Amino acid sequence: MKILVLNGPNLNMLGKREPEIYGKNTLEDLCDLVESYCKTLDNCSVSFYQSNHEGDLIDKIQTSDVDGIVFNAGAYTHTSVALRDAIASVKTPVIEVHISNVHSREDFRHKSMIAPVCLGQICGFGFDSYILAINGLHRILSKDVK
Amino acid sequence: MKILVLNGPNLNMLGKREPEIYGKNTLEDLCDLVESYCKTLDNCSVSFYQSNHEGDLIDKIQTSDVDGIVFNAGAYTHTSVALRDAIASVKTPVIEVHISNVHSREDFRHKSMIAPVCLGQICGFGFDSYILAINGLHRILSKDVK
Amino acid sequence: MKILVLNGPNLNMLGKREPEIYGKNTLEDLCDLVESYCKTLDNCSVSFYQSNHEGDLIDKIQTSDVDGIVFNAGAYTHTSVALRDAIASVKTPVIEVHISNVHSREDFRHKSMIAPVCLGQICGFGFDSYILAINGLHRILSKDVK
Amino acid sequence: MKILVLNGPNLNMLGKREPEIYGKNTLEDLCDLVESYCKTLDNCSVSFYQSNHEGDLIDKIQTSDVDGIVFNAGAYTHTSVALRDAIASVKTPVIEVHISNVHSREDFRHKSMIAPVCLGQICGFGFDSYILAINGLHRILSKDVK
Amino acid sequence: MKILVLNGPNLNMLGKREPEIYGKNTLEDLCDLVESYCKTLDNCSVSFYQSNHEGDLIDKIQTSDVDGIVFNAGAYTHTSVALRDAIASVKTPVIEVHISNVHSREDFRHKSMIAPVCLGQICGFGFDSYILAINGLHRILSKDVK
Amino acid sequence: MKILVLNGPNLNMLGKREPEIYGKNTLEDLCDLVESYCKTLDNCSVSFYQSNHEGDLIDKIQTSDVDGIVFNAGAYTHTSVALRDAIASVKTPVIEVHISNVHSREDFRHKSMIAPVCLGQICGFGFDSYILAINGLHRILSKDVK
Amino acid sequence: MKILVLNGPNLNMLGKREPEIYGKNTLEDLCDLVESYCKTLDNCSVSFYQSNHEGDLIDKIQTSDVDGIVFNAGAYTHTSVALRDAIASVKTPVIEVHISNVHSREDFRHKSMIAPVCLGQICGFGFDSYILAINGLHRILSKDVK
Amino acid sequence: MKILVLNGPNLNMLGKREPEIYGKNTLEDLCDLVESYCKTLDNCSVSFYQSNHEGDLIDKIQTSDVDGIVFNAGAYTHTSVALRDAIASVKTPVIEVHISNVHSREDFRHKSMIAPVCLGQICGFGFDSYILAINGLHRILSKDVK
Amino acid sequence: MKILVLNGPNLNMLGKREPEIYGKNTLEDLCDLVESYCKTLDNCSVSFYQSNHEGDLIDKIQTSDVDGIVFNAGAYTHTSVALRDAIASVKTPVIEVHISNVHSREDFRHKSMIAPVCLGQICGFGFDSYILAINGLHRILSKDVK
Amino acid sequence: MKILVLNGPNLNMLGKREPEIYGKNTLEDLCDLVESYCKTLDNCSVSFYQSNHEGDLIDKIQTSDVDGIVFNAGAYTHTSVALRDAIASVKTPVIEVHISNVHSREDFRHKSMIAPVCLGQICGFGFDSYILAINGLHRILSKDVK
Amino acid sequence: MKILVLNGPNLNMLGKREPEIYGKNTLEDLCDLVESYCKTLDNCSVSFYQSNHEGDLIDKIQTSDVDGIVFNAGAYTHTSVALRDAIASVKTPVIEVHISNVHSREDFRHKSMIAPVCLGQICGFGFDSYILAINGLHRILSKDVK
Amino acid sequence: MKILVLNGPNLNMLGKREPEIYGKNTLEDLCDLVESYCKTLDNCSVSFYQSNHEGDLIDKIQTSDVDGIVFNAGAYTHTSVALRDAIASVKTPVIEVHISNVHSREDFRHKSMIAPVCLGQICGFGFDSYILAINGLHRILSKDVK
Repeated sequence: MKILVLNGPNLNMLGKREPEIYGKNTLEDLCDLVESYCKTLDNCSVSFYQSNHEGDLIDKIQTSDVDGIVFNAGAYTHTSVALRDAIASVKTPVIEVHISNVHSREDFRHKSMIAPVCLGQICGFGFDSYILAINGLHRILSKDVK
Repeated sequence: MKILVLNGPNLNMLGKREPEIYGKNTLEDLCDLVESYCKTLDNCSVSFYQSNHEGDLIDKIQTSDVDGIVFNAGAYTHTSVALRDAIASVKTPVIEVHISNVHSREDFRHKSMIAPVCLGQICGFGFDSYILAINGLHRILSKDVK
Repeated sequence: MKILVLNGPNLNMLGKREPEIYGKNTLEDLCDLVESYCKTLDNCSVSFYQSNHEGDLIDKIQTSDVDGIVFNAGAYTHTSVALRDAIASVKTPVIEVHISNVHSREDFRHKSMIAPVCLGQICGFGFDSYILAINGLHRILSKDVK
Repeated sequence: MKILVLNGPNLNMLGKREPEIYGKNTLEDLCDLVESYCKTLDNCSVSFYQSNHEGDLIDKIQTSDVDGIVFNAGAYTHTSVALRDAIASVKTPVIEVHISNVHSREDFRHKSMIAPVCLGQICGFGFDSYILAINGLHRILSKDVK
Repeated sequence: MKILVLNGPNLNMLGKREPEIYGKNTLEDLCDLVESYCKTLDNCSVSFYQSNHEGDLIDKIQTSDVDGIVFNAGAYTHTSVALRDAIASVKTPVIEVHISNVHSREDFRHKSMIAPVCLGQICGFGFDSYILAINGLHRILSKDVK
Repeated sequence: MKILVLNGPNLNMLGKREPEIYGKNTLEDLCDLVESYCKTLDNCSVSFYQSNHEGDLIDKIQTSDVDGIVFNAGAYTHTSVALRDAIASVKTPVIEVHISNVHSREDFRHKSMIAPVCLGQICGFGFDSYILAINGLHRILSKDVK
Repeated sequence: MKILVLNGPNLNMLGKREPEIYGKNTLEDLCDLVESYCKTLDNCSVSFYQSNHEGDLIDKIQTSDVDGIVFNAGAYTHTSVALRDAIASVKTPVIEVHISNVHSREDFRHKSMIAPVCLGQICGFGFDSYILAINGLHRILSKDVK
Repeated sequence: MKILVLNGPNLNMLGKREPEIYGKNTLEDLCDLVESYCKTLDNCSVSFYQSNHEGDLIDKIQTSDVDGIVFNAGAYTHTSVALRDAIASVKTPVIEVHISNVHSREDFRHKSMIAPVCLGQICGFGFDSYILAINGLHRILSKDVK
Repeated sequence: MKILVLNGPNLNMLGKREPEIYGKNTLEDLCDLVESYCKTLDNCSVSFYQSNHEGDLIDKIQTSDVDGIVFNAGAYTHTSVALRDAIASVKTPVIEVHISNVHSREDFRHKSMIAPVCLGQICGFGFDSYILAINGLHRILSKDVK
Repeated sequence: MKILVLNGPNLNMLGKREPEIYGKNTLEDLCDLVESYCKTLDNCSVSFYQSNHEGDLIDKIQTSDVDGIVFNAGAYTHTSVALRDAIASVKTPVIEVHISNVHSREDFRHKSMIAPVCLGQICGFGFDSYILAINGLHRILSKDVK
Repeated sequence: MKILVLNGPNLNMLGKREPEIYGKNTLEDLCDLVESYCKTLDNCSVSFYQSNHEGDLIDKIQTSDVDGIVFNAGAYTHTSVALRDAIASVKTPVIEVHISNVHSREDFRHKSMIAPVCLGQICGFGFDSYILAINGLHRILSKDVK
Repeated sequence: MKILVLNGPNLNMLGKREPEIYGKNTLEDLCDLVESYCKTLDNCSVSFYQSNHEGDLIDKIQTSDVDGIVFNAGAYTHTSVALRDAIASVKTPVIEVHISNVHSREDFRHKSMIAPVCLGQICGFGFDSYILAINGLHRILSKDVK
């Protein structure tokens, strides 16, 4: 079972950007945490990709050969119809995640353009949002396999 | 560690109501699944409550002596300022869950009145939404304890 | 053929409340009128329930064992997603009725949250709105039977 | 007691147009049904008029010498201030009817421009919407006579 | 002269809930303060009722046999058409009160559904909002008596 | 100098329709008044046309061979892009008139689709609105001539 | 019969300000034109007042002892509730005038706050808007006198 | 293969109306151009109809016995639910055309009520919009035949 | 303790303006009533100021040397950001008052620009609104002193 | 005559993505079809470019040395002001095309940011939309040449 | 070269009003700073005017005989059409300035009514906003002179 | 002191694109002008970057090691939440500039997504907008240094 953790714009700034919202840990710390967790799961390998470019993220979604995607689209969550179409154009299930509780921030962060084409969403658990998403994806993919 | 799983209006109809959206399993099946899962966790007892009455749900939030609440507010999610105030009036962390992906349904189900005062949200994983919520809550509460 | 006439908030005030809109007759008068009418129909028994509590109305819709419901949801018509879900969660056909012509009153009374899940609506005929609703329900149920 | 059944644009296409919404019966079938029903009523003659022209419908409302009008304004329901003014300009009571439940269709069909100046509305009962409207009109006019 | 002080959802949490907004004193303290004040007035007895249930508040408004009501509807202020109709259905004058200045809080707290059917509103004076409301009610009722 | 007085839907009901708004005089009275007034003007002949049909009004605007049009579009004022285009498609100056003060009536009567392509508007003077419009048109056309 | 011609902000700039919209003639030219016209009327004296101050215009409306007011409120037309209230607080009939056709300019000039409390409106006739307004006012006041 | 070219309100004014938008050629020129073009196609006869009357256009759509319709609904494009319903009520494919680029004109011309029930739209090519529409229709109908 | 009672535009018309809303008593009567009331309070002197000029009211708020202000901003309540800023720029507590219940009047009177920067609001008690405001201000200032 | 066919995000997924909307043929099939068609035209060479990157598309528009562009901007159609500016910044005529009828899909696909600066639009003809666009462009460019 | 620095409502409160937003320096300090700066410029004299009265500011704009105006309209920025018209009515170039970054404050401060008729805007630089505005104005006027 | 001048989409077209709005000078001319100016300042070096790619601009903001950024985000100003987050994620002060007065152009250019996280904005001075921005930035950074 192969999972891609896909991070969008400004998530490479984790640990530097607004630490009162996103915490002090870096994107590397996040990847380490996720990788460790995946090792505890049965048959689960994980890869990582981050880009500030909308087009790169679309390319990645179209071409990555994985069983599921955990996707933090960052600011593009709220504006990108093109990412929405990219998700809709592949069969791979995608889980939308956010580190912070986006619903308690600015109004324009309440609307997700990609939510309707994702399988599920998780937000507000800090880095654990990714852990829960992989957990959920793993449960679903395990069922499908059987 | 005590957790309350709180279910709002019409969730007692699970298995009967619109099975193409909510599946064929009943509320009892859901409780069994959650209870089994909690037994696999360290030191985690769970209780359940369901009501169609907004006032009952408010009463329960105010008076339940637990460490965390997993709350599927059903239709009240989208309309109830009173439930929002009830959540804000207690210190207990609350996780909002939904069985279906509410973002791919009618427009009026996209807006959550309680989201800004919850700690996190999870939706779209079927009954597993509850499992992930308890998992997340357990992780957070375990950290707090240390 | 069993029919439930379900009345929502403040309809127990009929005859006392704003008589220039709702007339001088009481809820009891209404029940008498409906009961008399049902006796003229073939095989048609009717029961009545009124409550000011949204949760009670949901409970009633979920548990009443009838062939059709004539429902005046009063003010909840315009605000209750929970009642909408309750109607959608049962197979019983529901007819929405209003005594007054809600479309010639305040703007917030023009929108019905429950209309899209009801079979039909009738408004503006005074107490006769109920008579017509039962007539219509009777015609439909009679066809189904055949 | 003379009643006019007035049908607006595209209702001459009944039976041909979108049968999954409007059924397979034609406008002629509808007129036959209504005429039969009127014969069962005390002293009730009925006439019919259909036009695709807004102006024709206005002319008819202004000039028809009847005791009541059952009016399915079709698409003009949602756009015509001129028909609203025509109804307001005569003393004849008008009942708005629709074959389908307009509230469970496109958003632009939820708003009725003529509803505030009609006596009542009935929708969702198929052709029976007309029967119920005539029934209701008959009850009201009979009371007025006494 | 009999006055009812009616408190809506979450006001039983006074002193516990968000003390930076509502202060540290409890609902009991509030009742004591109000009762003391009423004793200083000529011929003025006061009773109290609090509920988190919209339906209970409607029942109380319909059935309480008093000369005036001081009503803090809490969160229902902003959403309840049913409470609005309940107030409109009785002759008893109702004064809307709020402890905090609702206009300097979230946008959805700026709109009051019940204000148009109340006699007057008072907000922003802390517990004194109730004292002023009773004072105002007493002045009005005293004039009526004369 | 030839002037056309063009009247839209329901204006043939003047004197019968809602006399508290439009007064008791008929369309004929209006024409007489206008005709008398035109005789007092230098070189000014007037013709009249009324129709409930939007298409007829468009035809008339396109084909009438006059120097100016005084146009009361009635309800079409608020909805007709086609009349707007018709006015824009001819060189004849058009003055929009209304008998009543449309701005103190329902919201949907505040918006005029044709106003931006008319030369001027006059409303609220009763039948005198037409007199003033002809006066204004006469002044403008007289200047043009010079 | 005494008439006040009241001009609001920036109308003292007539002839200097945006001549492509307002023409080349000055406020003085306007006053001369109006005065000449009034002399042709039976028993009609006219006075003039212009101010850029909203408060001055309110004072003038409250205190001027005239039979009618012709009011070009300029930019205050679109924003001033206070002028609206001032007009509503006096019995003197007020006619709203504009030199240009405000409906073919920016959107924010389409809405008039004072229109609902004025007797009538005239716009788009250049300086002749004032002449027509006085004509109309004179006709109305003459009728009242009789 | 029979094609109807249907033109709505004011298109009979082509060549006279706002030539800076629509060009100097007349409706007759347009028909000639289209007819010439059709002769170059295999087995393609064309007929023409223009009306300023919404009802006439509805009648024509319902009754014309053709294989496809090229429809320039003019101003009714933006307002007519009745034309939308007429198109939906027939099986004949309809192509929406506009001479000018409606998207670079007034806001109210950006919305097409009929677009969702047409097969395709073409705009901005001047008279060539019709040629392209017939070309497209011909391609589609030729495929269907095979 | 010095209190300023500040009245905005058109309040000098009290007793003359729309008496069905504001009553028959004049601004002088109001001042007398308030002055009498203040004499019954411990150590409380009151001064009065009324102006129709927004700028005058701003000047007064900035320069008046008092312990509290009771402010009826009249129509400026709904439009003036400048008054809001003036209130925010001083430390003096301001109480917003209205004679009538503004929430049961026109929509544009429901919004108060100054409410968020006032300490509290009182409306709907007639002249007694001022009495209650002074009472409330007195209670607050007395506490501050202690 | 050189034409560029420019395709935006996710159009490289043609044949894979949502085939019920876009058909089973691939982008390569599309290019072949277009190329074949161009060979039938007089003097018309065509080139192709596809990218998921907004910036790439902007670069291409600015730098491509062609006589006309046929542009399917995909999802960027609805969000990109930058592409709009790019089109406005070059003199090359651009035709907007869409494979599906965007007007019968989600609301957010009805609005085109680039339409106002394109020469024309064509949608709903499947791959033939491109053929018609090239046909139209060819006709226009041929005229310009002459 | 003569420049007027014009300050609107509440700017006389600088140093006293909300110092966390506007700083501790007074309007006098601001004038001194600006005057010093102007002395460093070639041939540049400056004058100052502040008023809380909208009408005074309009008068000043109309009558001041200067080569350019630096205008901080304060709260009137967001509401005054009359100031907009005043600026449009003179040929003098006007630069809009704000001390704070208005875009990071309340929503109603994001909209400037006067911006479209100003030459440019500068905000967010504290008192330096004025310095930059004068610098910019000086550069432009120097070019014009040459 | 190091400053980055960052230019967004289509600014490489300066001098070619819509010269009636942006002037005839090129991006190179702009860079020359800015560089010359910086040489007149104490200790101020400047670098330049332009890209049509949103992702490139984000990368640049995150990685450039400068003391301040002057940023003309072009069309991305109005749509990019990702650029807003990028600016918020670095400590470097950013000044928003625009060559033209964006407030007097299309509505969608009035809203800036990045303004709330910039230090200040300058627009409307042509190329001088950049000069003023550097001047302002220099003043602020000089103060910070001290």
